[in-house]
Amino acid sequence: MNLIEVTLGIKISGTSIEYGLVNRMGEIVLEEAIKMRGNESAETLFERLHKQFSSSYKNFKDTYKLMGIGIAAPCANYHSGTVENSSNLNWVKVPVVEIAKKYWDVPIVITNDANASAIGELKYGNAKNFKNFIQITLGLGLGSGIVAEGNLLYGNEGFAGEIGHTIIERNGRHCGCGRKGCLETYVSTTGLVRTAIELLSKYNEDSLLREVPLNDLTDNLIFKAAEMGDSIANETFEVTGRIFGEALANTVAYFSPEAIILTEGLALAGDLIINPTIASMEKNLLSIFKGKVKILISGLPQGNAAILGASALIWHELHMHKVNIKLQTLEKTIV
Amino acid sequence: MNLIEVTLGIKISGTSIEYGLVNRMGEIVLEEAIKMRGNESAETLFERLHKQFSSSYKNFKDTYKLMGIGIAAPCANYHSGTVENSSNLNWVKVPVVEIAKKYWDVPIVITNDANASAIGELKYGNAKNFKNFIQITLGLGLGSGIVAEGNLLYGNEGFAGEIGHTIIERNGRHCGCGRKGCLETYVSTTGLVRTAIELLSKYNEDSLLREVPLNDLTDNLIFKAAEMGDSIANETFEVTGRIFGEALANTVAYFSPEAIILTEGLALAGDLIINPTIASMEKNLLSIFKGKVKILISGLPQGNAAILGASALIWHELHMHKVNIKLQTLEKTIV
Repeated sequence: MNLIEVTLGIKISGTSIEYGLVNRMGEIVLEEAIKMRGNESAETLFERLHKQFSSSYKNFKDTYKLMGIGIAAPCANYHSGTVENSSNLNWVKVPVVEIAKKYWDVPIVITNDANASAIGELKYGNAKNFKNFIQITLGLGLGSGIVAEGNLLYGNEGFAGEIGHTIIERNGRHCGCGRKGCLETYVSTTGLVRTAIELLSKYNEDSLLREVPLNDLTDNLIFKAAEMGDSIANETFEVTGRIFGEALANTVAYFSPEAIILTEGLALAGDLIINPTIASMEKNLLSIFKGKVKILISGLPQGNAAILGASALIWHELHMHKVNIKLQTLEKTIV
Repeated sequence: MNLIEVTLGIKISGTSIEYGLVNRMGEIVLEEAIKMRGNESAETLFERLHKQFSSSYKNFKDTYKLMGIGIAAPCANYHSGTVENSSNLNWVKVPVVEIAKKYWDVPIVITNDANASAIGELKYGNAKNFKNFIQITLGLGLGSGIVAEGNLLYGNEGFAGEIGHTIIERNGRHCGCGRKGCLETYVSTTGLVRTAIELLSKYNEDSLLREVPLNDLTDNLIFKAAEMGDSIANETFEVTGRIFGEALANTVAYFSPEAIILTEGLALAGDLIINPTIASMEKNLLSIFKGKVKILISGLPQGNAAILGASALIWHELHMHKVNIKLQTLEKTIV
């Protein structure tokens, strides 16, 4: 009997590892997680991960064949296979792919969450028909993955697509990266909260948001207040969308994408954030781009997007690898 | 006897057409030009061009074989083969490739000047060893061509790389595109002049620049004044470099290029513009990129860069075409 080919998608976050076996159709046939221990090293983490996975996988061996492993992790570098300076993980420079290869004898690649999401969207989600699009994850920060001509853009250092750290306001808000005015200090769930606080100081109208301690102010609370008609909460989304749209207009001038796909966090606010973003982007676009760039919400299931993205990454890699090997042979025959 | 393969590089500007036959080494074996007539249509232009070229080419036919034609023109769209809304040419939407194909039975492609320069740099110039770099032309405007993973980035509409029209100052200087604050209103030869005028109003020091009518103020004059120690002229370059460096820091966050290559106009000012640009870029770069991106001056000969770029474009295209045809056959055999 032919074995069904699957890949293992692993999503590393600051607190847990989720993983799943995924077939070519994007169906998850096994899904598990382990909790990270405080300041756990990658070595012990992968040892535990491999042990737990193997114990489950032995029941699958007669049906499935593991083709490769894709890993999505914060601050991951595709070229070097490392995770570098991740504040979430307390890993300074960890050769994750090298460590994982001690346990599995299959192709393994790693990339950051946003890139994995972009490839997930390309393979299973709303970008199946796009060759040029940008995936933006609007969580605590703003992550982005750029697909140009059907491939992830990595650039020379492997760190292309740091749209969240383009400076959009000279001497603007302080950013976790040590600089000021980065896009993600305005457009992210934390950016939304900072804008709400700014507007609470600027205006003197009543607002539901004045009734909670600032430390308890969340994007979700602002969302609920906006839905209840709170004017400062609504203005918070308007301002955030305006800034986001201005930034996207510049992004479009760089890449001429067919679509920009938004996921997680702020994106869940739907029209409240999408409408002012589109209006502002269109207003600021160079005329040749006006009306030509779609803003879409992710087509991947919320809970499993990360695992699917990581699994899609290695499917994509396996495909490109085959193509490239033949291409190299080919290049020799072409002047 | 084997014929030597050559391509024809054609550079269309608002006033003239330059063209040259170029071999694979980047050597120009025939170089000519014709003057454009006021408001001349593309049809009559190409009729004249073909006539003049054929008359010269007949002496070359026994030695050279014309493999293809590359055209560089303002506002050219690679995908559609057209020139659209070019204010320099008074052409609203002209199917240049289609018109050229009436006269030549070889592959013909068109792109804008900046993209052609980028490919020229890749094939014959300072980017031979780079897979990820950005070419910036600092003439009357700011044109840019982006090479990612060895290929020109066109994007969905064919207009990727409009870095000159990213907005860097909300409600800033009025731009020819109808918007405000575009990078090219600050960083270009005209941008330099506008900055000089701004500084002449801001400061009240003596300056050589106060001795000429504003209409006669040029980048060249500011350059000479700066070299003579004129403080406002020097400050003009400092301010321009600061703004340029800030913009490049953002560009690097998008693309993670290995190098940024500058050509023409402002780039000819050398250290006067390069030094403040590098200082400002490094200051504003995300730490992972610091010290990793080269700023270089073009390696193409000034006078012939356009023809070489256009010829390189079709060499590149012919190569990629062969690769892609084999690749398509290949893809069918790969799941």
